[in-house]
Amino acid sequence: MRASAPSQEEIRRQNLGALLRFVHERGQMSRAELTTELGLNRSTIGALTADLTEAGLVTEEAPRETGRAGRPSLVVRAMSETVYSYAVSVEVDQIRVARVGLGGVILDQRSASRPRGETSDLISPIATFIRDMTGAGRCLGAGIAVAGMVRHEDGVVHLHGDLPIATLVREQLPDLLPQVKVGNVADLCALAEHTRGVAAGCDNVIYVYGDVGVGAGIIAGGRRVTGHGGYGGEVGHMVVNPSGRRCSCGSKGCWETEIGELPLLELAGSNETGLSAVLAVVDRAARGDAVAISAVRHVGDWLGFGVANLVNIFNPELVIFGGTLRDVYLASAAQVRSKLASMGLAATREHVRLRTPALGVDAALIGAAELAFQALLEDPLA
Amino acid sequence: MRASAPSQEEIRRQNLGALLRFVHERGQMSRAELTTELGLNRSTIGALTADLTEAGLVTEEAPRETGRAGRPSLVVRAMSETVYSYAVSVEVDQIRVARVGLGGVILDQRSASRPRGETSDLISPIATFIRDMTGAGRCLGAGIAVAGMVRHEDGVVHLHGDLPIATLVREQLPDLLPQVKVGNVADLCALAEHTRGVAAGCDNVIYVYGDVGVGAGIIAGGRRVTGHGGYGGEVGHMVVNPSGRRCSCGSKGCWETEIGELPLLELAGSNETGLSAVLAVVDRAARGDAVAISAVRHVGDWLGFGVANLVNIFNPELVIFGGTLRDVYLASAAQVRSKLASMGLAATREHVRLRTPALGVDAALIGAAELAFQALLEDPLA
Repeated sequence: MRASAPSQEEIRRQNLGALLRFVHERGQMSRAELTTELGLNRSTIGALTADLTEAGLVTEEAPRETGRAGRPSLVVRAMSETVYSYAVSVEVDQIRVARVGLGGVILDQRSASRPRGETSDLISPIATFIRDMTGAGRCLGAGIAVAGMVRHEDGVVHLHGDLPIATLVREQLPDLLPQVKVGNVADLCALAEHTRGVAAGCDNVIYVYGDVGVGAGIIAGGRRVTGHGGYGGEVGHMVVNPSGRRCSCGSKGCWETEIGELPLLELAGSNETGLSAVLAVVDRAARGDAVAISAVRHVGDWLGFGVANLVNIFNPELVIFGGTLRDVYLASAAQVRSKLASMGLAATREHVRLRTPALGVDAALIGAAELAFQALLEDPLA
Repeated sequence: MRASAPSQEEIRRQNLGALLRFVHERGQMSRAELTTELGLNRSTIGALTADLTEAGLVTEEAPRETGRAGRPSLVVRAMSETVYSYAVSVEVDQIRVARVGLGGVILDQRSASRPRGETSDLISPIATFIRDMTGAGRCLGAGIAVAGMVRHEDGVVHLHGDLPIATLVREQLPDLLPQVKVGNVADLCALAEHTRGVAAGCDNVIYVYGDVGVGAGIIAGGRRVTGHGGYGGEVGHMVVNPSGRRCSCGSKGCWETEIGELPLLELAGSNETGLSAVLAVVDRAARGDAVAISAVRHVGDWLGFGVANLVNIFNPELVIFGGTLRDVYLASAAQVRSKLASMGLAATREHVRLRTPALGVDAALIGAAELAFQALLEDPLA
C-alpha cells in the first residue's frame, strides 16, 4: 500500500538526498547538469548545494577552462576525504578492511589472511585495522560483507553458528562507529556493481559469487531481492543434480557441490585451496593440461546449467560472475553459453548478457561501504 | 537513481491516488480511518474525498447506527457499479470474461470452453462477451490473463507463436476499451492474492500456478518480479531432473515435466485432460486407489523439490499453490513438506507458510482487472 504524499519538510529532505546521491554515485557534476538531471530549477539547486556545503558533505569549485564563452557552471563534488565509512570484507581465507570516502573512493586499505573456517578471532583484527586507519573528518560507521547468511533484523550472521558480528564490532569501537551494518557478500557485490560498476543502469541483474560456497546478489526491477528474513539469493543451495554429492547443508546435489571451489580442485587433482589454487587450475587448462581442461569443462557445464535456471526464473538483462567464478566462467564460457542455449527459454536468453565484474575484488568493500552510506543519503542533514 | 521530490501538483495526485487505492483495496472506510491510515489531516481528507466524489469515483454516506455518541464519520466507498474494467482469463480449455467494478467486485461473468491449443478464434468470443456485458458508467479498459509468456513492451503473447492479443481485442472494440493490458496468469493471480487475498500484507510471496504448464507470480519486497522483458517467473522451465523427460521447450527435465497436469494424468493412467481429470485422480487417491496414490506422491515429491529450490532462492514468507496444483498440493502436502524439510535451508524454511488461494478461480480475473485499474489509481483525475 502506497503511503500518502510527503510534507514540505520531507520534500526538502528528498531533494537533498537526491542531489547528494547523484554526486555520490556519478562523481562530480556541474550545477547545470544537476538542474537537468533532478528536474529542479537553478535557484533550488543553488539552495540545496549551499545546505550540503555548509554541512561539509559537498564542495563547489569553478571547473577547468571549458573554452566556451559565458560564466561556467560551478562543479559540485562529494567531500570524499572527510566524509567516510569503514568497509569490511570477511572472506574465506582473508579479512580486508578499507576506509571508503563518500563517492565510493577507497582511501586506505588493510588485509590479513585468516585460517579457513575460524570465527573466534574475527573481531579483533577488524577493530585493529579500523583504529589503524582513523582519518580526519566524519565517520558514518561501518559496513561488513560476509560470505554467510545474514539475518536482516539484527545483522546476525550464520557462519559456523550464529555470530552477532555487527554488535561485536560496534562494542569494540563504540566512540568511532555510530552504526555497523552487515550484508551478504554476493548482495553487496551486486549493490556495488549496480551503483558504480558493470550493472549501472541495469534494473534486472544476477551477480553469482563463488568461493567454497555459492550465492547470488539479485536485483529485480532496480531493487535488491533480499527475501523475508534477509536470506534471499541462496542459489548455491538450488539442487541441480538430484543424484549428486552430499552438501554441507544436509541436502544433496546443491549447485555449490558442482561449481564451488572444492569440486573444481578435486576434479583437477589439486591439493591446494583458495583463489590461487583455482587460478592455477584455470592456468593449467589454458596450457593444455587434459585433467584441468576436463575439470573446468565439468564445472562450466554445471555453471551454465544453474545460470539457465536463474535466467528462466528472473529474466535478467545481465549475469555477472564474481569471486572464483569470474575466472572459471572466462575459462568455460563455451560450456556456459551452450547450456544457456539448450536450457534457456528463447525469449529470456535472447537479451541476457554474461559479464565479469568491473570493480574486481573491491566490489565487496565498495558495497559494504554503501550500506554505511545509506542513512546519510536518505537524510543528509539529520 | 531516485528522482527528486514531487511538485505540489504531483503531491495532490499522489494523495488522491493513495486515498482511492485504500478504498479500492480495503473496501469502504470512514473518513476517520482514512485520516489515520494516510497520515493527513481531516480537512485534506475532506478535500480529496470531495474531488473524487465529483469525479464519480467514490461516494460518501452516513454509516449505520454505531451506538456511540457524537457525529459519526462519513463512510467512503468506491463506485463499484459505475466504474469498472473488463477482465479476461484465457485458460488452457476455457475463456472467461468478467466485468469487475472498482474495489474488485465481480459484477457479471461469462465463460466458454475452448479446444486445447487453438488460438485462431480467441478474439471474437472475448469481444462478444464484452459487448454482451456492457454496463452503464465508465469503462476503464480491459486486462487479460494468459497462460503464456507476455512481452512487457507491447503485450504480445508467446502462445503457439506470437499473438498480439491486446491489439487484436482493442481493434474489435475501439470505442468501448480505452486500453487493453496483458499479463501472465501466475503474475496476475499473485497480484490479486497480494491485493485482496491470502497474501495481503505479505511482501515476499511465490504463487505457483499449474495446469499443463507451470509458472510463478513472484512478489519480492512488495513488488512484482517481472524481469527485463516481462518474462520473469518461468519456474516451470527450471530443470529439476537432468535425467528426466524432454520438455516442450526443447530442454529436458523441466519442473513442469514432473508436476504439470500431463505427467500426473499419465502416471495415474487417466485418459482425460484438464482440471476435472486432475480432480478425479486426487479423488481416486483419497479413496485408496494405489495407482493414483503413487502418481500423486510422485508429483508431490517433485512439487516439494522445486518449492524448496524457490524457497532457498527467494526466502519468501508465503508460497501459494494455484490452478491444478491447489488440489495436488492438498493431496500431497506430506511429500511437499518432507522435501522442503530435507532441501530447504533451516533459516529460510523456518518461517515459510504453504497455502492455497483465498480467491480461488476468480484470482486471474481479479488480477487482470487490477491491470486495467492501475492507470486510474496512479492519477485518478487524469
